[in-house]
Amino acid sequence: MNTFGRLFRVTTWGESHGPAVGAVVDGCPPGLDLCEEDIDRDLRRRRPGQSALTTARAEEDRVRILSGVFEGKTTGTPISLMLENRDVRSRDYDALANLFRPGHADFTYEKKYGIRDHRGSGRASGRETAGRVAGGAIARKLLAAAGIRIIGYTRRIGEIEIDDARIDLDAIERNPVRSPDPIAAEAMAKHIEEVRAAGDSAGGIAEILAEGVPPGLGDPVFGKLDADLAAAVVSVGAVKGVEFGDGFALARMRGSQSNDPFIADGTRDPFIPRTDWRIRTATNHAGGILGGISTGMPIVLRAVVKPTSSISIAQRTVRRDGTPTTVRVEGRHDPAIVIRVVPVLEAMTALVLADAWLAQRALRGRDPGA
Amino acid sequence: MNTFGRLFRVTTWGESHGPAVGAVVDGCPPGLDLCEEDIDRDLRRRRPGQSALTTARAEEDRVRILSGVFEGKTTGTPISLMLENRDVRSRDYDALANLFRPGHADFTYEKKYGIRDHRGSGRASGRETAGRVAGGAIARKLLAAAGIRIIGYTRRIGEIEIDDARIDLDAIERNPVRSPDPIAAEAMAKHIEEVRAAGDSAGGIAEILAEGVPPGLGDPVFGKLDADLAAAVVSVGAVKGVEFGDGFALARMRGSQSNDPFIADGTRDPFIPRTDWRIRTATNHAGGILGGISTGMPIVLRAVVKPTSSISIAQRTVRRDGTPTTVRVEGRHDPAIVIRVVPVLEAMTALVLADAWLAQRALRGRDPGA
Amino acid sequence: MNTFGRLFRVTTWGESHGPAVGAVVDGCPPGLDLCEEDIDRDLRRRRPGQSALTTARAEEDRVRILSGVFEGKTTGTPISLMLENRDVRSRDYDALANLFRPGHADFTYEKKYGIRDHRGSGRASGRETAGRVAGGAIARKLLAAAGIRIIGYTRRIGEIEIDDARIDLDAIERNPVRSPDPIAAEAMAKHIEEVRAAGDSAGGIAEILAEGVPPGLGDPVFGKLDADLAAAVVSVGAVKGVEFGDGFALARMRGSQSNDPFIADGTRDPFIPRTDWRIRTATNHAGGILGGISTGMPIVLRAVVKPTSSISIAQRTVRRDGTPTTVRVEGRHDPAIVIRVVPVLEAMTALVLADAWLAQRALRGRDPGA
Amino acid sequence: MNTFGRLFRVTTWGESHGPAVGAVVDGCPPGLDLCEEDIDRDLRRRRPGQSALTTARAEEDRVRILSGVFEGKTTGTPISLMLENRDVRSRDYDALANLFRPGHADFTYEKKYGIRDHRGSGRASGRETAGRVAGGAIARKLLAAAGIRIIGYTRRIGEIEIDDARIDLDAIERNPVRSPDPIAAEAMAKHIEEVRAAGDSAGGIAEILAEGVPPGLGDPVFGKLDADLAAAVVSVGAVKGVEFGDGFALARMRGSQSNDPFIADGTRDPFIPRTDWRIRTATNHAGGILGGISTGMPIVLRAVVKPTSSISIAQRTVRRDGTPTTVRVEGRHDPAIVIRVVPVLEAMTALVLADAWLAQRALRGRDPGA
Repeated sequence: MNTFGRLFRVTTWGESHGPAVGAVVDGCPPGLDLCEEDIDRDLRRRRPGQSALTTARAEEDRVRILSGVFEGKTTGTPISLMLENRDVRSRDYDALANLFRPGHADFTYEKKYGIRDHRGSGRASGRETAGRVAGGAIARKLLAAAGIRIIGYTRRIGEIEIDDARIDLDAIERNPVRSPDPIAAEAMAKHIEEVRAAGDSAGGIAEILAEGVPPGLGDPVFGKLDADLAAAVVSVGAVKGVEFGDGFALARMRGSQSNDPFIADGTRDPFIPRTDWRIRTATNHAGGILGGISTGMPIVLRAVVKPTSSISIAQRTVRRDGTPTTVRVEGRHDPAIVIRVVPVLEAMTALVLADAWLAQRALRGRDPGA
Repeated sequence: MNTFGRLFRVTTWGESHGPAVGAVVDGCPPGLDLCEEDIDRDLRRRRPGQSALTTARAEEDRVRILSGVFEGKTTGTPISLMLENRDVRSRDYDALANLFRPGHADFTYEKKYGIRDHRGSGRASGRETAGRVAGGAIARKLLAAAGIRIIGYTRRIGEIEIDDARIDLDAIERNPVRSPDPIAAEAMAKHIEEVRAAGDSAGGIAEILAEGVPPGLGDPVFGKLDADLAAAVVSVGAVKGVEFGDGFALARMRGSQSNDPFIADGTRDPFIPRTDWRIRTATNHAGGILGGISTGMPIVLRAVVKPTSSISIAQRTVRRDGTPTTVRVEGRHDPAIVIRVVPVLEAMTALVLADAWLAQRALRGRDPGA
Repeated sequence: MNTFGRLFRVTTWGESHGPAVGAVVDGCPPGLDLCEEDIDRDLRRRRPGQSALTTARAEEDRVRILSGVFEGKTTGTPISLMLENRDVRSRDYDALANLFRPGHADFTYEKKYGIRDHRGSGRASGRETAGRVAGGAIARKLLAAAGIRIIGYTRRIGEIEIDDARIDLDAIERNPVRSPDPIAAEAMAKHIEEVRAAGDSAGGIAEILAEGVPPGLGDPVFGKLDADLAAAVVSVGAVKGVEFGDGFALARMRGSQSNDPFIADGTRDPFIPRTDWRIRTATNHAGGILGGISTGMPIVLRAVVKPTSSISIAQRTVRRDGTPTTVRVEGRHDPAIVIRVVPVLEAMTALVLADAWLAQRALRGRDPGA
Repeated sequence: MNTFGRLFRVTTWGESHGPAVGAVVDGCPPGLDLCEEDIDRDLRRRRPGQSALTTARAEEDRVRILSGVFEGKTTGTPISLMLENRDVRSRDYDALANLFRPGHADFTYEKKYGIRDHRGSGRASGRETAGRVAGGAIARKLLAAAGIRIIGYTRRIGEIEIDDARIDLDAIERNPVRSPDPIAAEAMAKHIEEVRAAGDSAGGIAEILAEGVPPGLGDPVFGKLDADLAAAVVSVGAVKGVEFGDGFALARMRGSQSNDPFIADGTRDPFIPRTDWRIRTATNHAGGILGGISTGMPIVLRAVVKPTSSISIAQRTVRRDGTPTTVRVEGRHDPAIVIRVVPVLEAMTALVLADAWLAQRALRGRDPGA
């Protein structure tokens, strides 16, 4: 199952230390303007080596479009995307071939397949997400043309959480931790430095907003928009949970608090004709989704990202034959992987929304929201 | 998308106030013992009217198996399951046809489809989950034969959470709130009574354990076991988030805390031959899943369930034409729907695991874990 | 795999001698007028006992719509359809439980599943097609609203083929063999009587036309319209081949004969503006499909239907344990099943076209041909 | 829909005149020996320029395996295959950009997508099949390990058909027309030369045998083995029909002729114990499939391949704006494309059988036939 989506589908392939990674995007409508720079822009945000706070592995990550685009426009045929793996040091991993790193998928791949490419985690490497981001960049272009915008940022790292009152979306890409709160950004950076100095790693929470989503996207019962988003988000390595709107805080609320009242904008202005009234909710505890269908309010989701599994502190583990040993995972690793997960989650959100948008177009025969 | 699963598939159908609801289970292996009572047992746990703390709507919910079983055994052909809707009072809903109840899917169905069956929420009714539970009961039988057991319970209602030190799985079905902690059960029941008396409702958290799951289930990259479980769980109405293992608490942890060390049982006992050593993790922060593949440790997931949307307190809303109004949702409703969501989540977990179990059997040509 | 289709999906269930057969149609757009009589009309054409030339088994075959329709219109939710099995004489089949009837699926079901419901061929019975016809009737209504009409008839029975010069589509349902050529119809009927009197059965060819199909339906590479139609048609029991347009006769032709020249209607009439010219092919050797995509010309396909396997002439076979025996398949059987396959093929054609029509609507955002 | 298969899946991509074509194979079990030469072997048989009777376009067609193989074995992760397009002369096609070649998909792609890559037919080019052959080569290796062998050859070109009495499977690759009958091979070659000299092309019939297929493969109702094979075969460009076993000839037969009697090998030999009796059919009119499930007898199918659409004889057609014109399709073309379709049909057959083989393994938990 390396294919995601029903109408807008992406198939990813590639291992960390093979010759290349890539994706095939199938089902993209024809006539969309697309060039390699459209994709590289998103890839640069996922790329390692962006700052002192991320891994030092340097990848150029320039995509090649091998099919599906003619004279600058998509043709409706599959779009094959390839990124070569350049800065590959397989020997770093030789010592790890015969043991199971804690927190990694070494053990489970071995149990599942009976064989595994141990170099740089193979298919389980974060490198796999480059294909997702490349495919997601195309979905994002499709959505942008429909007025839908997806924004992601770091909400929390360790004990440091952003203050909603200070959120400035323009600040996100101006600091190395992708925080929309510049003050929290500094504390987060300091925390990461401390954790790294200790040979350890930090967890965090990423938050994704999708604005401009028309009401009506998502397909009950099993293709609910939040169910598809949950699968998309949790399919990203290191993500161990997802919540929508008020999420887990809803457990402590009452219905009279959590229900979002419906209102109609314009009802109090006598100059706005009734036909122009726009129904929406006054609050957004639901995170933009009711009954698995978008409400027209912003979609809000959060994903928890576990601390990076690779740490240089000595850890107990076993070799493949069961004998106890200890391991320090040296090499180039991100101390707080949540920062680089943000653009991957944006990509996955874009893939789900593009798919739902096309499905709704099939159902009703016109662009959703039109 | 009313079909769930790849190899073990269930298609559900039916509205709250139509003649019946049901499910078609496709892909169940032949030769499994199956009778209607196997399914009714799980349906009774989902059924309303089980206690003073759930809705008074009484449904007999006895399933009819219409196909796929011959002389008490599954034949490999699709198993059609039907439950008639008996205690249907459609007129209760006439007043609601032209307004949008807060927290419900009235507005989004109308936007999506341009038409909706307003009686008892139609397809968006909790009644829809009867088909899931019926299908899940078959998956559960298949898994039981493979040594896999799924247990669900209420972890939290409002401010009351169970104490892990007091968990007694045998206590779950002995109290009306499905709490494994008998002391918390009493506080939860009292809390629900208070909320109901106020015309309000309470949120909560359900927890699901799957024990005996062999390592190797789940399919990277997009069919990860946790991604499929996330979709399954969030596809249930009222669920607004899901987490695995330590879940959202991982955001505050360090890698040295969250990584589960690998150990091999038996390594210290000179009488246990090396070939019988069983590798597992010493702790289970990962909730039984690494890299999207089961580790062999218990799978642990939690879902947050929002407060029941139907409350009798007056709420602001609008009519279909946008004019403001207020609504009190009278009728028979569960003040804390989390209690009845538990068996639905068990069913969804069973469906995912049965599917992953068959997929792994296809991949390796033998029963997983054998 | 009892589900067919990608966007417009039908799942069928049921055995010949179980309590009922049925289908769940998922993905039907909302707002389509639909009542039980719309479906019964097609079911009556499939029904046995229509004339002296078909089996005497009498089934009322009145469908019940159990979900998905509200106040006479589809709601977009799954439409569950059920037909009870009434005239069931299971004991007729007791003698057959332990042997393999030649031409039937007894042996292969046993090898596949290790268990089988032997009564009336179980799931392999022609009775299974009632669910297809019921689902297809809904697809047909959807297509009719888009100006697409599907017509089927018997082209050949044994040595008797219709004369294209005598085709009268209105004649089809006026004779018991579904021949559009009234003269051939009489010869076919006589031939069937002879075959039946000999305890034998006859093969034949069915032809399906789809008129009004807009250009652009069908999805290269693996979802080609003819590939999907081929799967649909060959999935019907007793069909052993399918061809499109000139089909197998193309093997003897040259490119200069088989290529259909393109012309533009209206080019010679000075009063027709250039924007109203309609490009089409002058001939239709391609059967309305080029490169897997509809051309706008009528789609023409033919399916070969093998002689009914059940014959009362003694045949050599073996028992389940391998011991040789002979069998005469007595009971109520169609001597030329092609007649009753015609409406099933119409239904399958409708399902494929409805699916392709919705897919094209998703791709381009408007009704195909609009 | 550029993905084929359910468990063993291949996604193809690429246009005739883009930088490359390729395929991603997903779902291949781990541990299979695989190197590039395994794939190149099959690609060479598909390759143009093999003899004077095929197109002169020369492609090296050496595949690169970009992922999914580690130390010479498949790992269970997706196998990405790429073939660069080298001998590309796009300018040959400039004159064709604004007209619709008869028999080609120019018109239908334009109607479907509103845009098309006209160079060398773009995605509709026969070049697309290189990805299928590459993917099929992997399926074929998997099947070979299970004792299944797939053989294809040319049965007919124009009026020349092979004589079954002269079939010698070893002769197939020794003559340029892939005929198993050496005498027919000479007549076919002579016929092709004549047709080419006339600027015309010839149609034909390809035949595929699959030997060693265990009984039990194929999934009723909609995943019947013959339905899946029909879709696979008809999805290949230029194929306009498919038949199984006696195929269209069954229309003229009676049940007493077409039913294959069951026999048990060994029943007459007193030294063979009853448990070793092997049940099979005495004849094989059914072509190895009954009720959509393999019988264990050889699978036999035939596909009709239309005459190559590209001919240098002048043909009537229209420009994109509808104005009449004539076209001679010059360039490098195969006068009888059936010869090169043979390995593509073998590949598609292998993909279907590999998929069905894995599905049956999931259903029963052991290798089919074991």
